[in-house]
Amino acid sequence: MSQEITKDYIEDLELDLREGRLQNHEELYNEGHPADLAEIISKLDLAEAKLLFEQIPDETAAEVLMELDDDLRAKFLEDYTGEEIAKELIENLDSDDAADLINELPLEQRKEVLSGIEDQEQARDIARLLVYPEGTAGSLMGTELIKVKDSWRVLQCVKEMRKQAEDVEHVHAVYVVSDDNVLLGTLSLKKLLTTSTKTPISEVYSQKVQSVEVTTEAEEVANLMQKYDLVVIPVVDPLGHLVGRITIDDVVDIIRDEAKEDYNLASGLTDEVEADDTIWSITKARLPWLLIGLFGGLLAASVIRRYEGDLASIPALAFFIPLIAAMGGNVGVQSSAIIVQGLASNSIDGSTMARLTKELGVAVVNALILGIIIVGASLFLGYGTELALTVSVSLVSVVIVAALIGTFVPLVLNNYKIDPALATGPFITTLNDIIGLFLYFQIGQLILGL
Amino acid sequence: MSQEITKDYIEDLELDLREGRLQNHEELYNEGHPADLAEIISKLDLAEAKLLFEQIPDETAAEVLMELDDDLRAKFLEDYTGEEIAKELIENLDSDDAADLINELPLEQRKEVLSGIEDQEQARDIARLLVYPEGTAGSLMGTELIKVKDSWRVLQCVKEMRKQAEDVEHVHAVYVVSDDNVLLGTLSLKKLLTTSTKTPISEVYSQKVQSVEVTTEAEEVANLMQKYDLVVIPVVDPLGHLVGRITIDDVVDIIRDEAKEDYNLASGLTDEVEADDTIWSITKARLPWLLIGLFGGLLAASVIRRYEGDLASIPALAFFIPLIAAMGGNVGVQSSAIIVQGLASNSIDGSTMARLTKELGVAVVNALILGIIIVGASLFLGYGTELALTVSVSLVSVVIVAALIGTFVPLVLNNYKIDPALATGPFITTLNDIIGLFLYFQIGQLILGL
Repeated sequence: MSQEITKDYIEDLELDLREGRLQNHEELYNEGHPADLAEIISKLDLAEAKLLFEQIPDETAAEVLMELDDDLRAKFLEDYTGEEIAKELIENLDSDDAADLINELPLEQRKEVLSGIEDQEQARDIARLLVYPEGTAGSLMGTELIKVKDSWRVLQCVKEMRKQAEDVEHVHAVYVVSDDNVLLGTLSLKKLLTTSTKTPISEVYSQKVQSVEVTTEAEEVANLMQKYDLVVIPVVDPLGHLVGRITIDDVVDIIRDEAKEDYNLASGLTDEVEADDTIWSITKARLPWLLIGLFGGLLAASVIRRYEGDLASIPALAFFIPLIAAMGGNVGVQSSAIIVQGLASNSIDGSTMARLTKELGVAVVNALILGIIIVGASLFLGYGTELALTVSVSLVSVVIVAALIGTFVPLVLNNYKIDPALATGPFITTLNDIIGLFLYFQIGQLILGL
Repeated sequence: MSQEITKDYIEDLELDLREGRLQNHEELYNEGHPADLAEIISKLDLAEAKLLFEQIPDETAAEVLMELDDDLRAKFLEDYTGEEIAKELIENLDSDDAADLINELPLEQRKEVLSGIEDQEQARDIARLLVYPEGTAGSLMGTELIKVKDSWRVLQCVKEMRKQAEDVEHVHAVYVVSDDNVLLGTLSLKKLLTTSTKTPISEVYSQKVQSVEVTTEAEEVANLMQKYDLVVIPVVDPLGHLVGRITIDDVVDIIRDEAKEDYNLASGLTDEVEADDTIWSITKARLPWLLIGLFGGLLAASVIRRYEGDLASIPALAFFIPLIAAMGGNVGVQSSAIIVQGLASNSIDGSTMARLTKELGVAVVNALILGIIIVGASLFLGYGTELALTVSVSLVSVVIVAALIGTFVPLVLNNYKIDPALATGPFITTLNDIIGLFLYFQIGQLILGL
């Protein structure tokens, strides 16, 4: 299907579906790529979406369903009985997708679905996958793979591979195992193509193979696959038995989700939230950080209140409150962002002390440049020497303190195994606002002789 | 190499290298994975790093070099003549890596390297890759691939594949082309394994194949490969001739870099910056946004200055300046972050008007909740009814206005083909600070009767 999914196309399709001209889109139902079909379905009204979905052949329909958003998928699944899910959907999915689907069902329906699967081996495979906790290699892996024994010769190997290939959609790698299924290495397709059929496998396979255990964290799987440019990685149990494989497409999703999560935290959003979510779910994702901001603002108000007398005698002190607060916030976010990324990519070496010393260097350079500019600008704009000096000295102090806090807080959180990304965004901004204001008024009292 | 790269390991290694005990690490040089070797090299002092690098066999060394940071790679390349680069490095790299390497060399050295490559066909392939502008599919692709003609039978196909496989490290897909090299489809390894050797290829290959043109943007390549879960995608010229392929590992790097860029922009960093960069390069990445913040702070100061008389009569007005500024900034960043992500994932449908209407809904809900809380809190903290009312009404207005600006600005930038992520972070914060303060003092004048 090379049809681009434009707004016009969706409108025409919706009209045809609504008015019963189903036969106009035979090619879409039968030839459309599951990812395209899912995109189209998510753009239609629910009634028309379900009508379209019914036209799609079972084997594609299952894949389309897995490409949909969780919420939308749940709406489609409501129309299925447990047995229908087993027969029409599960049997057309890879084991990892099947396990994911079952995990999304209500508890009471899961058993019904599992017992409805006709292929006993498939049911056993899926049931085994269900036990791995979310976020582990076990929960990501599929069991469809090609394996051969090191005791075989190339010819037997090719024969067995043909048999196994029936159940495997994409052949990314051929694994070599011992007679009791311990992972020994990989057999490259290149070797298989270029070796005589009588050669024993043990002579041609490569023992260099990266693998992960079922309990390895998803994030580490992603890091390994990125580092070693892997398309697929085998998964073993604690005894080294080959139990599954994880493909790069699942890992790409993890990488994207993690990046999104960090971005959201830096932007003050607590949940994964999409532009097309409901008003209420967007509000829920935004309100928590706003409440922290509100609380911070109230704290800042009570800090300033302490200096009410000073403000009464020199109201001009208030002019630079936003500048001091904003700069403290900006510097804090920059510093914490560099640390958060460094921690994520494991590129932070050395001690916390060494990091803080370096950050101090950066902060001092930035602070001096900004301090000189602001003293010049304030004098030029006619704010008076003493006020200009107050602002400049405060700014230098705030930039330095904010940088150190922005560096220190995520490092400390990380030491306590708390996601350092939590420290970015509104949290650091609010903290630095308050400390900055305190510094500003204290320095003001000193310089302005209040 | 299963040795974990700990700090102790690096220190021991460094000592051995410095004191000439090179033979202690034979296994590392000869068996180490290029990614591990690169990681180790980047943690050693330069002198020891070069010593280690010299021990690595040529074919691995080239790959190690490509895994290093740009800066470090440049330092290693200084020791090579153009001819050495051609003979020892280029000939051991895939064409896409080779082209990348040559692109990093000084102009005058490039010709020398290209003419130093012995394999004329490889030199031609690389030269052809050099012409594609950065950020296009052409610049990402490699020319190593397996292709068969639709006029062949399976047997001939396997024979040719064996020949071609000599030059191709990983066999991800087998492409089917016409006699004049037009891409027709793919031949799955599964089909190849399960079909009799006399079957004509034209009967067994799949015509469903996603491809991109050499001029397609890298970002679109990444989106396509993600959407369709592809491990490799073929690249064609405008006439449909098969000219190369892009593998997922290169695309994973793009996805990561893009996410990083957005994150940096949201955090107020202009350049890609690493925690282990020099103080000066970190400063350069941070200063631009700080200067914008400084300028914004000065603007805010001149806004407040207009209300100096009001502040003199009611200094308490100054207490809530940080709250109003911070909330405007936070809401603006949240709104723009949702839009930026929506634009990146193409999930924003409908008109700008529809988006703004929805954002208005979210903003009103948030604003009312926050407005009620703040009026209660201010009364409780004894700030007086009129001030509490001023803060509450201002907060409601600021939240709504900031949300609309945060939505509108990135949408407009996007319409003008400017990266909407530029609108996040310090830019939106600063803009909203100023507008918020203006609203606050105007509303204050009305309610407090100034």
